[in-house]
Amino acid sequence: MYLYNFKGDIMYKVLNNDLIKEYIDETPDIRALLLSDDESIDKLDVSEIGDGNLNFVYNIKCDKKSLILKQAVPFLRCVGEEYPLSRIRMVFEIEALKIEKEICPQYVPKIYYDSVDMSLVVMQNLDSHKILRGEMINREVFPFLSEHISTFLADTLFYTTDFYLSSAQKKEGVKKFINKELCKITEDFIFTHPYEDNETNECNPKLDISVVKKFRENRDVKTAVAKMRYKFMTDAQALLHGDLHTGSIMLNKDETYVIDPEFAFYGPIGFDVGIYLANLVMSYFSLKEDENFYKDYVLAMIKDTWEMFASKFKTNMVENEKKRKSLQWSYPDGLEHFGHYADSFVKDVFDDSVGFMACEMFRRTVGLAKVADVAGIEDLERRAEVEIKVLESAIKFITFNYNSIDEVIEEMQKI
Amino acid sequence: MYLYNFKGDIMYKVLNNDLIKEYIDETPDIRALLLSDDESIDKLDVSEIGDGNLNFVYNIKCDKKSLILKQAVPFLRCVGEEYPLSRIRMVFEIEALKIEKEICPQYVPKIYYDSVDMSLVVMQNLDSHKILRGEMINREVFPFLSEHISTFLADTLFYTTDFYLSSAQKKEGVKKFINKELCKITEDFIFTHPYEDNETNECNPKLDISVVKKFRENRDVKTAVAKMRYKFMTDAQALLHGDLHTGSIMLNKDETYVIDPEFAFYGPIGFDVGIYLANLVMSYFSLKEDENFYKDYVLAMIKDTWEMFASKFKTNMVENEKKRKSLQWSYPDGLEHFGHYADSFVKDVFDDSVGFMACEMFRRTVGLAKVADVAGIEDLERRAEVEIKVLESAIKFITFNYNSIDEVIEEMQKI
Repeated sequence: MYLYNFKGDIMYKVLNNDLIKEYIDETPDIRALLLSDDESIDKLDVSEIGDGNLNFVYNIKCDKKSLILKQAVPFLRCVGEEYPLSRIRMVFEIEALKIEKEICPQYVPKIYYDSVDMSLVVMQNLDSHKILRGEMINREVFPFLSEHISTFLADTLFYTTDFYLSSAQKKEGVKKFINKELCKITEDFIFTHPYEDNETNECNPKLDISVVKKFRENRDVKTAVAKMRYKFMTDAQALLHGDLHTGSIMLNKDETYVIDPEFAFYGPIGFDVGIYLANLVMSYFSLKEDENFYKDYVLAMIKDTWEMFASKFKTNMVENEKKRKSLQWSYPDGLEHFGHYADSFVKDVFDDSVGFMACEMFRRTVGLAKVADVAGIEDLERRAEVEIKVLESAIKFITFNYNSIDEVIEEMQKI
Repeated sequence: MYLYNFKGDIMYKVLNNDLIKEYIDETPDIRALLLSDDESIDKLDVSEIGDGNLNFVYNIKCDKKSLILKQAVPFLRCVGEEYPLSRIRMVFEIEALKIEKEICPQYVPKIYYDSVDMSLVVMQNLDSHKILRGEMINREVFPFLSEHISTFLADTLFYTTDFYLSSAQKKEGVKKFINKELCKITEDFIFTHPYEDNETNECNPKLDISVVKKFRENRDVKTAVAKMRYKFMTDAQALLHGDLHTGSIMLNKDETYVIDPEFAFYGPIGFDVGIYLANLVMSYFSLKEDENFYKDYVLAMIKDTWEMFASKFKTNMVENEKKRKSLQWSYPDGLEHFGHYADSFVKDVFDDSVGFMACEMFRRTVGLAKVADVAGIEDLERRAEVEIKVLESAIKFITFNYNSIDEVIEEMQKI
């Protein structure tokens, strides 16, 4: 597939293992990252390593140097050319990566090159890092993960809100990140299809379908899900990652990186927090009865992530207000009152997070996309037992009010 | 002031009584509305009638024909050229008028001509209609007003939401109506300055300043106002009018028109409803003890406006869902459950409306802009008594929860 510009030059082409060498040879900015001027392009070792649904990802090596080239194609990779999806998503990914990098350089891969025309980005190869989901399935422990992720969340989310940006800057951000196609995917696959008899849904054949029907026709669940969906569609609070599950995190014992922000848009803060927590909760339920050590570890991750996030977000709010010294809060008790407002704001984010967490748990069980932690359980009867726990706790999470993450964890332990 | 395009032609100039005739003579589409080809431009009778803060408004007559020409100038009219304000606001006004006109033709003036370059719109002259605020000050009664305004609110707000529009159309709307400058005016003058010791504030010298200080340093009021401000800045629910006070409504006994939507943007539905209700509440408090008939009339307006709006908005939601027949609610009790969701949605709008109502009441008392209903009371002592009632009820409205408009009205009667 080739696209031409108005002068007739090739502007976009879908790369493959061969074309990629040619492309690098013609693109001095990338070539210089890997080869000296007199070295031949044949020295490069290219392999496609993408396992996602959307894009092609190439690992390109030359001696000890290596990098990642990620290209968006104008269709849904996992389906094929008959499911078109605009390449504009790469623009959102590039722009979001740059903003996240500015806010949290330690948690975002380095970007070496990007091309909007070619819908590609060249970035740091995280080859000493692995995907968190796989590591949790292997029962690996990461002592700094909750510290890192809570900072990533608190900082990327705070520094893109109206609290930090000027009113005009924030509105420019909203406009720039109107991400219609990828938001529609979330609206459909997280907030709509799982709650109806939709042909895209897929279910473990051993899962008792009457349980599914029970929440699909439950007034309070349906109302609560409709509210979360509406909130997702209207509440332009902060620039979200938009898809922060445990497959979007690469890490080793020391370092944590968040990747793949193509779903980025201005949405409710609780969405990023809730999606991540949901993936921890599902990992927890996937554990066998005797895996007490890892159960405690995952529960601690859930508690730490929320509590550290909440504390850091509040600190961001209060420290920013101390610097800003806005007239509005400049009276003897003003800063204390602002702290009360910050607490109340963070509590609203907590409520949203628990709601979004529940939606992610429903859809990863009865919708199209699954999580390997649960769907990878080979014994379908045991998998169904786990899934029932996931669904039953999701029903509680979306219909009850909780005052703290401890109450949420207690609820999990009761199920 | 002249602005030129790239060819050197005049693209924009500020009109005045003389230049306006010249402009009409050069603009066949406007000329033909008033004059036959052989009639001279000298037949036109032009007078400037604008009394707003922002724009120039001309009444142009020729025999029995007449129309209104409204032009935005690149500064704040009420201050002068030293307070620049971009003319882009006229684009928002024109675009919003067109959308409102499509949704509610009977409540929006006809638009005959518009020019983005010249920042002007030519529209129906509502010369048998008067401004609602003045009419309420004259204690006039309008039997159809609440019916009309509740329909305007329920329809313009519903038909621009995600309930009615596709996800992509709605997002295009949000993008198009990023109205930075005029939103900033609201953020500052409704949600910030009135709650601080800001130099732009103006107060009745007879108003006990200790009452003002009491809410400016009250933790719960400050927190609640900060939440409403944040909601205004983030909650992109529907295309709002954005400035729907009783000065933005022109009417006679039979007809009602809503004018001046230059503040239009995607915001929380309760903002339009709350601003309008606040202006009724202030009119109520401005009445003298013995004006029982008009007191009852205004209370009925408040009750009817809310209840009719709530019922019409819910009907719009339910009827739309009946037509749409989305799979999600297609089960035996689905439509009943959707009705429950609609009730819950409308209750959230109610809570928002009461909150925004309180903000408008604060700012119209201690901020820069006043309402003539109260500020026009010549006896400053009596005016201060009214203002204390407005402030005290605003404090209640913003810090308490109410279940119905009847509870709000009861609260008003207690004060």
